[in-house]
Amino acid sequence: MADHDKNDDGLSRRKLLTRGTSAVALTGLAAGGGAAGMLEFSQTALAQQASRRTGGSVEVRPGDLDEYYGFSSSGQCGEVRVMGIPSMREIMRIPVFNRDSATGWGQTNESRKVLTEGLLPATRKFLETRGGTFVNGDAHHPHMSFTDGTYDGRYIFINDKANCRVARIRCDVMKCDKIIEIPNASDIHGLRPQKYPRTGYVFANSEHVVPIPNDGSVLDDPEQYWSVFTAIDGDSMTVAWQVLVDGNLDNCDADYEGKYAFSSCYNSERGVTLADMTSAERDWVVVFDIKRIEQAISKGDFKTMGGVKVVDGRKGSPYTRYIPVANNPHGCNMAPDGIHLVLAGKLSPTVTVVDVRRLADVFTDKIKPRDAVVAEPELGLGPLHTAYDGKGNAFTTLFIDSQVVKWNIDKAKRAYNGEKVDPIIEKIDVHYQPGHNHTSMGETKEADGRWLMSLNKFSKDRFLPAGPLHPENDQLIDISGAKMELVHDGPSYAEPHDICIVHRSKVNPLRVWKRDDPSWEEARQWAVKDGVKLEEGANVIRDGNKVRVYMYSVAPAYSLEKFTVKQGDEVTIFVTNMDDVEDLTHGFTIVRYGVMMEISPQQTSSVTFVADRPGVHWYYCQWFCHAMHMEMAGRMIVEPHQT
Amino acid sequence: MADHDKNDDGLSRRKLLTRGTSAVALTGLAAGGGAAGMLEFSQTALAQQASRRTGGSVEVRPGDLDEYYGFSSSGQCGEVRVMGIPSMREIMRIPVFNRDSATGWGQTNESRKVLTEGLLPATRKFLETRGGTFVNGDAHHPHMSFTDGTYDGRYIFINDKANCRVARIRCDVMKCDKIIEIPNASDIHGLRPQKYPRTGYVFANSEHVVPIPNDGSVLDDPEQYWSVFTAIDGDSMTVAWQVLVDGNLDNCDADYEGKYAFSSCYNSERGVTLADMTSAERDWVVVFDIKRIEQAISKGDFKTMGGVKVVDGRKGSPYTRYIPVANNPHGCNMAPDGIHLVLAGKLSPTVTVVDVRRLADVFTDKIKPRDAVVAEPELGLGPLHTAYDGKGNAFTTLFIDSQVVKWNIDKAKRAYNGEKVDPIIEKIDVHYQPGHNHTSMGETKEADGRWLMSLNKFSKDRFLPAGPLHPENDQLIDISGAKMELVHDGPSYAEPHDICIVHRSKVNPLRVWKRDDPSWEEARQWAVKDGVKLEEGANVIRDGNKVRVYMYSVAPAYSLEKFTVKQGDEVTIFVTNMDDVEDLTHGFTIVRYGVMMEISPQQTSSVTFVADRPGVHWYYCQWFCHAMHMEMAGRMIVEPHQT
Repeated sequence: MADHDKNDDGLSRRKLLTRGTSAVALTGLAAGGGAAGMLEFSQTALAQQASRRTGGSVEVRPGDLDEYYGFSSSGQCGEVRVMGIPSMREIMRIPVFNRDSATGWGQTNESRKVLTEGLLPATRKFLETRGGTFVNGDAHHPHMSFTDGTYDGRYIFINDKANCRVARIRCDVMKCDKIIEIPNASDIHGLRPQKYPRTGYVFANSEHVVPIPNDGSVLDDPEQYWSVFTAIDGDSMTVAWQVLVDGNLDNCDADYEGKYAFSSCYNSERGVTLADMTSAERDWVVVFDIKRIEQAISKGDFKTMGGVKVVDGRKGSPYTRYIPVANNPHGCNMAPDGIHLVLAGKLSPTVTVVDVRRLADVFTDKIKPRDAVVAEPELGLGPLHTAYDGKGNAFTTLFIDSQVVKWNIDKAKRAYNGEKVDPIIEKIDVHYQPGHNHTSMGETKEADGRWLMSLNKFSKDRFLPAGPLHPENDQLIDISGAKMELVHDGPSYAEPHDICIVHRSKVNPLRVWKRDDPSWEEARQWAVKDGVKLEEGANVIRDGNKVRVYMYSVAPAYSLEKFTVKQGDEVTIFVTNMDDVEDLTHGFTIVRYGVMMEISPQQTSSVTFVADRPGVHWYYCQWFCHAMHMEMAGRMIVEPHQT
Repeated sequence: MADHDKNDDGLSRRKLLTRGTSAVALTGLAAGGGAAGMLEFSQTALAQQASRRTGGSVEVRPGDLDEYYGFSSSGQCGEVRVMGIPSMREIMRIPVFNRDSATGWGQTNESRKVLTEGLLPATRKFLETRGGTFVNGDAHHPHMSFTDGTYDGRYIFINDKANCRVARIRCDVMKCDKIIEIPNASDIHGLRPQKYPRTGYVFANSEHVVPIPNDGSVLDDPEQYWSVFTAIDGDSMTVAWQVLVDGNLDNCDADYEGKYAFSSCYNSERGVTLADMTSAERDWVVVFDIKRIEQAISKGDFKTMGGVKVVDGRKGSPYTRYIPVANNPHGCNMAPDGIHLVLAGKLSPTVTVVDVRRLADVFTDKIKPRDAVVAEPELGLGPLHTAYDGKGNAFTTLFIDSQVVKWNIDKAKRAYNGEKVDPIIEKIDVHYQPGHNHTSMGETKEADGRWLMSLNKFSKDRFLPAGPLHPENDQLIDISGAKMELVHDGPSYAEPHDICIVHRSKVNPLRVWKRDDPSWEEARQWAVKDGVKLEEGANVIRDGNKVRVYMYSVAPAYSLEKFTVKQGDEVTIFVTNMDDVEDLTHGFTIVRYGVMMEISPQQTSSVTFVADRPGVHWYYCQWFCHAMHMEMAGRMIVEPHQT
């Protein structure tokens, strides 16, 4: 269990320092000692939440710590955001599919390795004239790795819809360490990790139907377009297998027993126009039998397509079942009870509830697919996603109604069985047009029913106007009491796509890098080859027209106050930050060279570029590090070509 | 005066809609009617601020609007952030020097024009092999344009230290419309607009000394390194003139009479190592006489260097004066009284106060430069920047002490004259190591003494840990009462460099684009040439191997559900968003093509790329726009080369 109020030597640094509020001391004590139930709840936070419900404030005061991490996708920004909840503050941005100016993500050798090594050959070739990496992404569904049905604090996985990738973020250092491109797919959309026994597999959907292979041999012939479901090995970040399906795939989830995965399909028609895609009265959820698929792989019942093993899971296959559900479904959310799966109808006012205990009989054809449906309550207009409180209730966003509806699963089942009972408990207005929603720990068996976030696509008039492009609106709703209560509006830049809300006891990041971190292994190997110690480097090694410059930094200086190269040299600069004080990050920027990178305490970062601009070019530290930070600079002297 | 609670037809939409809190109605009424003093203060907000001081909350509740805009630089992120104050929420990001995945900033033809047209020829050549644009920047000092000593809501100007640029943001649409690269300079750092009679000039400092020209003809010969002060014409965004100076230049400011500009110099030694830069006991502030410089230009007393007119303002020049101030000064802040300029000593515990009324005598040599100094109080360790409350008090950040010190200017002057009086009123701890600070309206003659932000470089233990890279900490301090009170900790991603805090009555952004906006003038011209109406386009125009695709969007569809091009074609896609509903932004993304852009209501955006990847490539809307948003997609069919 992480204790965020203690530092490495066990002393509570927070208690020794001046604080903005006396409540800090209480929080510190509570977090260090008490634990309520399965999760370590801060007594102060619980008291605050209770008192707020009688008119108090949910504000996290200066110096107080949040109770939960929110790992939020940024949608089309391509990054992942680490939020504090309930403060709704953005604590950190993690560059993933985007280009980041501050850290040099996309420019440092370490980040370029992550961004390029998992690309498919055709994409690698395509990017040759485009700088070698994509610089955009559409990051939708961030989810933490699981062990035994709950978060384990190892990784966050997230998809890129735009360029068909899946990324992994290490939660110890909060940096992306792997990105792979998925073959045979178009627009990787739904993504969820296996919940049991552990992750394991990361499941990912191909949203649009395309020819496989999509190399120009099939063009405007939609009959030959297909979609695939992908299982990625989350440990090795390689594609384990794919399943060819009928229709397209939208969102997905996994069960709590490691038996099944599920994907909603809004285009069972395999249409390519809006009219085609919405023509059927019902679409389906595809159920994947993981054990059967694994057996198919081991017995050779697959085709190798695009370099991966693809099982045929189209209708009639033993590996899948297609359960008819409400029209053009979107959300696909497994309840923490391990029993119920809810598909949100989008173009229907209903959601469809599947009892996963009946799926064994569906797969053995003892019952029909539709017989696995145990409820189909009418909730309102435009149901999109469903979250849970762990107490038998569900919260579904209604896009068109701009509401969240709280409803009871058991009552919905009774109503489906003909009983006169209304499953709807309460509706609350949200502002406006909600997409995903998420409850604290709600996608795990430890769902705690404390907070709900509604990620709203429109904010309209909720914030000071900031031009034609509006922020979206992350709203926080207290669901701990009998009535839902909206407690916070949070503007969010494009876009608050999805989030997972993780109790802080599950996450324990490093405060300072460890010198043996694998992310700069290549730098380590270069240093060995050049007979240099990264930690003591103040060397310029020439190797033909390649120059390797090694320096370390201790605030407020780099170990080299200047170095000289020749115009046209390929220069690699390795900087090792030897400060080991928490939060003492340095940077390295070269003026008018477009070079900029982060070097956090005890980290090594490197960058390679061609020095094709002669003259005197200052490099400086762009992370304010010391009273004499402004003076932390040096000169790269580039001798011009002799003419 | 902007009324943010009313929409275009004068009805208060906010009052007609469901809200999260009943306080909204009060705010709406107050903002629509009342005005206190020169600025339109919300009575509710004032009451909240007063009540919070007796134990209430400063929280901006759901549906309430903030009282102030904060235009915050992002430091090395390269963007500008629009914040709400006192909520401390990030309402919008404005891409400027960075690359932005969501909006396609750096990729759309409209943004590439902004990013490239102001580049110097040598840089343009340098970037030819690097994708044509810089993708990083180090954005430090955002300041709004002035008219008659106060903000006028037209523009935000900001510098890029990394690649020597100055950018302008239009406040009507909150987008950057001009970026220019500054010749003869290294690391453009300090930036301030002229305050009177209007902006007018934007003043910008070159921080490091370099050879001029820096083309390799002078290398490791620091005696030949110089620094320049630049005046940019803020209307045309061209360099008006430069001044060659002794020493380097750090931060700058302008007076309230349009006579002078000021720049602090921490390296009067013109050193190139840390030891050299800190060797002198005192450095100086350089004072620029604007009228004399303008006369020099008109009478021809300049050299043309790097394409701009450069006046020699080195020591002994009639155009400048060098006033000795405390060692290695950093902050350079003009008080709203129009009289006092404060230079913060950084390596000295003192700040130096200059009375600008004495500068006329300094320029006519009636008194010595140092005789313009009227106070030099000792405040604490590492003074960096000073803000003002408009009531005669100053607030200086103490980097090393991790404090903000409130002191009285008049008392400091009396103490300097030998009176036994302590100018220090109060010190407050901040967390930790503050850099810039800023008060509400504090850099204008309308300084209102309500809020102070301390932008702290270290957060250490103030937030949930998020790995070795820590957020920084924007702290909000209530200065409206007799004692300063810390009311909010706000984590900030690299880095909270500087901010200007503008009352909302000064800013009145558009909610929807106007169709005649100049930013897509080139698209308009192409459409005329091709005989297409942008607003009705559903056309594919072939012009050799160039293809122009025109479409418009109305949720949930594009006007073209597919289009076909040939592999190797240069394709330009123009999308016009014909929805005119506020907040109904569309996007345009092409899968596995790295293409993504924003099209807000009534906007036209375009992107050009080579279609060198054959096959079926879906394009889709990445801004959730409609219940059938997922279905808003089409196909780009790329016919392969015949082999």
